Amino acid sequence: MFSKRTDLALEARELWQESAEKTTRLQGVKATKQKQEGYPTTRVDILDERGEQALGKPQGSYLTIDLSTFWQRKADFFERAVRAVGSQLKALIPQEGAALVIGLGNSAMTPDAVGPLTLDSVLITRHLIASMPKHFSGFRPVAAFRTGVLGTTGVESAEAVRGLVAEVHPALIIAVDALASRRCERVCATVQLSDTGIVPGSGVGNHRWALNQETLGVPVFAVGIPTVVDAATLAADLLEGSGIQSVDEETLRKSHQNLMVTPRDIDQQVRDLSKVVGYGINWALQDLEIEEMNALLS
Amino acid sequence: MFSKRTDLALEARELWQESAEKTTRLQGVKATKQKQEGYPTTRVDILDERGEQALGKPQGSYLTIDLSTFWQRKADFFERAVRAVGSQLKALIPQEGAALVIGLGNSAMTPDAVGPLTLDSVLITRHLIASMPKHFSGFRPVAAFRTGVLGTTGVESAEAVRGLVAEVHPALIIAVDALASRRCERVCATVQLSDTGIVPGSGVGNHRWALNQETLGVPVFAVGIPTVVDAATLAADLLEGSGIQSVDEETLRKSHQNLMVTPRDIDQQVRDLSKVVGYGINWALQDLEIEEMNALLS
Amino acid sequence: MFSKRTDLALEARELWQESAEKTTRLQGVKATKQKQEGYPTTRVDILDERGEQALGKPQGSYLTIDLSTFWQRKADFFERAVRAVGSQLKALIPQEGAALVIGLGNSAMTPDAVGPLTLDSVLITRHLIASMPKHFSGFRPVAAFRTGVLGTTGVESAEAVRGLVAEVHPALIIAVDALASRRCERVCATVQLSDTGIVPGSGVGNHRWALNQETLGVPVFAVGIPTVVDAATLAADLLEGSGIQSVDEETLRKSHQNLMVTPRDIDQQVRDLSKVVGYGINWALQDLEIEEMNALLS
Amino acid sequence: MFSKRTDLALEARELWQESAEKTTRLQGVKATKQKQEGYPTTRVDILDERGEQALGKPQGSYLTIDLSTFWQRKADFFERAVRAVGSQLKALIPQEGAALVIGLGNSAMTPDAVGPLTLDSVLITRHLIASMPKHFSGFRPVAAFRTGVLGTTGVESAEAVRGLVAEVHPALIIAVDALASRRCERVCATVQLSDTGIVPGSGVGNHRWALNQETLGVPVFAVGIPTVVDAATLAADLLEGSGIQSVDEETLRKSHQNLMVTPRDIDQQVRDLSKVVGYGINWALQDLEIEEMNALLS
Repeated sequence: MFSKRTDLALEARELWQESAEKTTRLQGVKATKQKQEGYPTTRVDILDERGEQALGKPQGSYLTIDLSTFWQRKADFFERAVRAVGSQLKALIPQEGAALVIGLGNSAMTPDAVGPLTLDSVLITRHLIASMPKHFSGFRPVAAFRTGVLGTTGVESAEAVRGLVAEVHPALIIAVDALASRRCERVCATVQLSDTGIVPGSGVGNHRWALNQETLGVPVFAVGIPTVVDAATLAADLLEGSGIQSVDEETLRKSHQNLMVTPRDIDQQVRDLSKVVGYGINWALQDLEIEEMNALLS
Repeated sequence: MFSKRTDLALEARELWQESAEKTTRLQGVKATKQKQEGYPTTRVDILDERGEQALGKPQGSYLTIDLSTFWQRKADFFERAVRAVGSQLKALIPQEGAALVIGLGNSAMTPDAVGPLTLDSVLITRHLIASMPKHFSGFRPVAAFRTGVLGTTGVESAEAVRGLVAEVHPALIIAVDALASRRCERVCATVQLSDTGIVPGSGVGNHRWALNQETLGVPVFAVGIPTVVDAATLAADLLEGSGIQSVDEETLRKSHQNLMVTPRDIDQQVRDLSKVVGYGINWALQDLEIEEMNALLS
Repeated sequence: MFSKRTDLALEARELWQESAEKTTRLQGVKATKQKQEGYPTTRVDILDERGEQALGKPQGSYLTIDLSTFWQRKADFFERAVRAVGSQLKALIPQEGAALVIGLGNSAMTPDAVGPLTLDSVLITRHLIASMPKHFSGFRPVAAFRTGVLGTTGVESAEAVRGLVAEVHPALIIAVDALASRRCERVCATVQLSDTGIVPGSGVGNHRWALNQETLGVPVFAVGIPTVVDAATLAADLLEGSGIQSVDEETLRKSHQNLMVTPRDIDQQVRDLSKVVGYGINWALQDLEIEEMNALLS
Repeated sequence: MFSKRTDLALEARELWQESAEKTTRLQGVKATKQKQEGYPTTRVDILDERGEQALGKPQGSYLTIDLSTFWQRKADFFERAVRAVGSQLKALIPQEGAALVIGLGNSAMTPDAVGPLTLDSVLITRHLIASMPKHFSGFRPVAAFRTGVLGTTGVESAEAVRGLVAEVHPALIIAVDALASRRCERVCATVQLSDTGIVPGSGVGNHRWALNQETLGVPVFAVGIPTVVDAATLAADLLEGSGIQSVDEETLRKSHQNLMVTPRDIDQQVRDLSKVVGYGINWALQDLEIEEMNALLS
């Protein structure tokens, strides 16, 4: 089978189900559906090594919130999306201790900029609490870090974060990153939350540059936002959907390498969704209303 | 047949040839190939109404320069690409008189920003010649205009340009715009030059907001740079290439609307290609070496 | 006397009063003070040629709104400042007809970017009314134009605007520009409105590139925002304030040429004030609440 | 005496000499002058505690290169300035081992952006040497870090750098920062190099958040670029230069607080000078010609 690229556990499960083995039962994986603020939410739990093997992702919980109705721009869209993302994230993370929020990705490449852009909407409080402890006693300490990209830093994100963890001693890390989805309709319209950290390249097992509890010593929660579809994956899906079974992977990869599928108004969508996620993180970490966040971030 | 989207005359001709009518001969169109600085260049001349009808584009000459070898980044890539684009454009335009260079498109959306970005590399001389005629007697007068987008100006590009033409009285207009190609390999790797002006929507005939000799009273030369492939067009091409004949247009459009295919490093590629085109325009208009342009534009 | 640079009529009057002639009465100028939304507002009317001569500015009304209390960031600061600027502007302009809003200045130089930045907060409606007249019947037609700078366009702002006026036929023009103030405390804290248009260089009389009723055929209202103090002017004021009477202009100019005094956080202040002015223009032109503007501009 | 703000050792010495104590000799400080590529260069060595006390800066060497002739834009200005800065820096730093280059300051505030902007012109090699040791054996390992500002990170620059040092183990740190000068003619026209690290607030002694050998365990070389003059300092200098002896500090501070003096074209000058400094750092660290840097950084 053509190896399709996806960073969503939800889609890895779909791909498994579509594959030849679908006659057998998917062992070690549990999937449940619910609604959150009216948004369909799917939870995929990878329970053991069989699940890891089947879906190619580490054990843990993966929640995918489908915000596509959000994009209809009804009057209260922003508030509802913030609450949906925020309350799910809140349920996932430890309820106490300092948080370090990491924005991964390249701020100079629009579809990859969703991590650093999100940080612009996160309320940074650690330094305020340190210098004015009485005034800011109602806030949870939050620090932020933009990793930049290897080509402009020379330092792996995991190295830089490990160094920072040794100084800041956070109780948890929230890492925000752009993802690739397999489906056009999920691009800039879904958010995946997980408690597994981020393994660059999405492999299972010990990856040297993973950002997770094992490498960093603190729990790492990932917030992933699909902003692109890999063009070769889209092509393969289209062909298979039309009954072509034997897609030649090499040819398809070659003719579509370095290409991605994105919304035409990706610049605007990435800005909008980054703000939803940033406010969602504030919702999960602080005891604040959205209007209060507006006032503090203006 | 599925109506595929392309702004390249070269591809309109390819589509015609692929279509059912390919048994008949394409009347009113002449195509020739040559090399320019080593880059393959195709010239499509639409000679009469039969050609207009067949290709859906107005009469005139369309040159497509394939710069893909350019992107191999050999030592002299930039200079050669500038000369290739510049000398072809020079052969197309009047050799005397003031030029007005128009950058169409939205500078806030990367694939659409190629027009305004190009202007940053065009040597602007009109005001210098006016104020210091002796010092700048060796230059041709060049002015520039960034049209912006309708949503932020409230004014159609053609209206704004018409007003400016009445003040500036240029002998010719060069209009730079982003295009959609049908083929991934042509994206950010080709330049189309034409002497037909730009008809928004690519229709033939009297379009109210066209930028051409008819509406503006001066010859309009278009420099078009494909930066995206329409996702539905890519999908249709893939399916047809695999022997699926009856592609359901409506379904395909619906599932891919508002999506485009671009290079992953579109930000960088648009910047690079804009500089090639800007310098190419200088090459066509002024009697300057590339190093002299560097010095004047720094 | 040292020739101090100011673009504010209010300050031109102050300078006249400080000068040797202060024993005589200032003829042809009337000044009145009032409060607007709690902000001190000074109106200087230049009534005839004597006033023009004395203050070096064309006949007409100049309103200076002192927003410095605004910067204390009280809860309702933004709304109050918008209403103060908006209602004064509304009282100055014709109550009907299409408006063309011009943003003068260089968007790449922070203190000069206040004009183009303001346009980002102005509601553009002309194209919407043209295409959907029924839906937008409640709005006044507004178009916008960013002149850019001569070095990147080759076209004088007045030429470009004149061309646009011939196409758009506005009933009035509102031109937004950065000013130089003489006083540090007025920088990024005041707005000057006038019905005289803008004369680049601030001279009286027929200036070829003026933007006013005479050159454009429609009334031109200027919104000026002081963002800098000329460093030589500051120096001269300091020295004279300390009893030094004979300031050597040439020496002072030479050692301070090309220098300006601005707030340390000029980037933020220019962004904030541009939004106040943009919303103020909406307040003057449309029948909308601030919350409605938020919704339409998001 | 009015306490004038300067970050240049050269000017601290000038201030001392102007002060009442100028009848006594300045102990513990040595100053020498030379030319570097035609640029006047002053070296101030603070030799002991007496020197520290007198100039308010830690012991060490401070080189100030006056690039003002550079700004005359003679044909070879860029190359000469790069060589002047680069060769002086090279003479100051250890000749072997990995370097970590730190860009301090706020990239969203132009006069403070010189640190992060400089990093855009520094050749980053650490990751290339790690992954392709044979191909990049001719390069010295260089990593980079943009500290951001406390308000958007919640982490002191010194904390973040300390964490990174523990991971990257550099042999030396080069920290680039914007400075305040006392003299307008030095703004955007001089570079100060020192081997003392950076003490935020410029105090002597143990500062908790200093970036120096003591706090970071590796030698820290500072590259400082004056981009502003404190407006109150300029005012005091003007008044004293005119014979006013008793300047009231409180009044002057109050009326000029939060104001700075900068060049009108600060955006362009900061970009230009950042490139000179970035290339100068490459010159000091790598064995490369300027043309080779151009090719590697394009």
